[in-house]
Amino acid sequence: MPTTVRAYAATSATDPLTPTTIERRDVGPHDVRIDIRYCGICHSDIHTARGEWGATEYPVVLGHEITGTVAEVGPEVTRFRVGDRVGVGCLVDSCRECTYCRRGDEQFCTQGYVETYSSTGRDGLPTQGGYSEGIVVTEDFVLRIPDGLALDAAAPLLCAGITVYSPLRHWGAGPGTRVAVVGLGGLGHVAVQVAAAMGAEVTVLSQSLKKREDGLRLGATRYLSTGVPDTFSRLAASFDLVLNTVSASIDVDAHLSLLDVDGTMVAVGIPEHPQSVDAFSLLVRRLSYAGSNIGGIRETQEMLDFCAEHGIGALVETIDAGRIDEAFERVVSSDVRYRFVLDTTTLA
Amino acid sequence: MPTTVRAYAATSATDPLTPTTIERRDVGPHDVRIDIRYCGICHSDIHTARGEWGATEYPVVLGHEITGTVAEVGPEVTRFRVGDRVGVGCLVDSCRECTYCRRGDEQFCTQGYVETYSSTGRDGLPTQGGYSEGIVVTEDFVLRIPDGLALDAAAPLLCAGITVYSPLRHWGAGPGTRVAVVGLGGLGHVAVQVAAAMGAEVTVLSQSLKKREDGLRLGATRYLSTGVPDTFSRLAASFDLVLNTVSASIDVDAHLSLLDVDGTMVAVGIPEHPQSVDAFSLLVRRLSYAGSNIGGIRETQEMLDFCAEHGIGALVETIDAGRIDEAFERVVSSDVRYRFVLDTTTLA
Repeated sequence: MPTTVRAYAATSATDPLTPTTIERRDVGPHDVRIDIRYCGICHSDIHTARGEWGATEYPVVLGHEITGTVAEVGPEVTRFRVGDRVGVGCLVDSCRECTYCRRGDEQFCTQGYVETYSSTGRDGLPTQGGYSEGIVVTEDFVLRIPDGLALDAAAPLLCAGITVYSPLRHWGAGPGTRVAVVGLGGLGHVAVQVAAAMGAEVTVLSQSLKKREDGLRLGATRYLSTGVPDTFSRLAASFDLVLNTVSASIDVDAHLSLLDVDGTMVAVGIPEHPQSVDAFSLLVRRLSYAGSNIGGIRETQEMLDFCAEHGIGALVETIDAGRIDEAFERVVSSDVRYRFVLDTTTLA
Repeated sequence: MPTTVRAYAATSATDPLTPTTIERRDVGPHDVRIDIRYCGICHSDIHTARGEWGATEYPVVLGHEITGTVAEVGPEVTRFRVGDRVGVGCLVDSCRECTYCRRGDEQFCTQGYVETYSSTGRDGLPTQGGYSEGIVVTEDFVLRIPDGLALDAAAPLLCAGITVYSPLRHWGAGPGTRVAVVGLGGLGHVAVQVAAAMGAEVTVLSQSLKKREDGLRLGATRYLSTGVPDTFSRLAASFDLVLNTVSASIDVDAHLSLLDVDGTMVAVGIPEHPQSVDAFSLLVRRLSYAGSNIGGIRETQEMLDFCAEHGIGALVETIDAGRIDEAFERVVSSDVRYRFVLDTTTLA
């Protein structure tokens, strides 16, 4: 039997979010029904709410940084029990048959994975996200939140966490590697913790030094301003990996100049406009400019376990449902340290 | 005692090249004096002659695709004897002490390697290239031309060959990999042969189909026109490596769309202007846009041996010294199949 849950939905590109109720599907044999406790507010939610990433189908319930507890499991579910602490990130299903799904990289599913909201489920119905009291997800796409992780601090890890963990792992951050994290926001403040825990030497590059103390406390050994003219020349060819977490346009060539031989600059934010890249910047030291997008379920679980082991969590500001629009505004103006998390008990 | 040799030199950005004589240094203990037999004409020569890559110091003798025979060796030389068939590429010296020099990647020398021309030698004198009858080079930077390789067909391998061989090796071209070579010119026509010999499945992407028969004969299994609208959509996500040998501006995002998950597009040509790259193109399938510049001495020798083993050579049109300017014009208008090689006996 479907469940009715309270939620907040975007109904147009310009109107404030409004309280509503939505139906969650009946718990199928392999499904897990989750009582949502927290949901992080991601910049993607805002882009979708405002129709900035192509046409949005309204109404839409946003949110793909979900944590909570298992309320019910289908008869075939083997990995979860009622009461388990769980999470759901950006993916709620995929074809499960292609090369990438079979190897656990569902983010590359050749059929296109099913996103947690603003997508079409395998049942043909639109998916609705975590700004709600509950959700039903097939068990293969449910993550376990380790005991050491608080549900509020864990919520943003489901998107922001895996978005930075995956490229740091893929491009080999670890002892002896020099990593620059560009931007100390929702993504960057997790990236610094993860890269440092992996053993890399971490430098934060930020426009200003306003968040310097936070950056150093989170594990960076240096925190430098890209607004100071000689920062780029001083740091020339001194990093193995530059992780750009900034969605605004930056000078890609200047950041490439920071890389040593065979270094990689990875974009995880998407600037609104294409950026200029000089092939000469890449050529001289065999550099790469790469992109990375979330990660698969296996790796997301690995990331959660890693964060629990190393005491890593997002720094969050918890908000009531009535303040989502205000939070959107503050995210857009980078006025949050470092992630808003919706307290779903306030949806009532 | 220094040797005087005949040469052709560029004396300004606009004047035709003119016959001249230059002095080659005395053969030092570790030096090899080479009688130059052929010198390939590389687009870089033209950029330098015309001052298109920053200020050129005139007069300059161009040429870094040199083959010939050993005429004299210094007393400490152990690896070469008079009469040996040898080559010299883009590098004639480096610091030999940095991490990169020590591991044989002199192209990344942190002190800056000494280029074959338009550079300053370790003796403080300007280097002069291969449009000349002879050159003196320290033995560590002299390559051996294997018996199977003709000296004319081998000359362009010293720059064009290593420029494509190195990235094909570095990014793993081989059995089971799908390689697109963009452009069938001086670089591309060697890249097709090398990638095919490495075991990759090779597709040529070219504006027109004019050179289709050559491309297929050289080892490509497909030769497709990028001027046909559906080429990019038909080939979407179907390559592991896209090697761009074209110096003109191309649509980078369109070419990135050809790459499958974890694919890399490598630029080996340098367009005059920076190009536009949309981070979104990189992000969805974790793609990389990379650059590569020649290779070290060890790898250049490996490339020559590989080419000899697989019967690979440049397709060349041999010219007299009096036709260098005409050849420059024809290189600029892509009117050569596929590389001009200067016959140095005509310098007399």
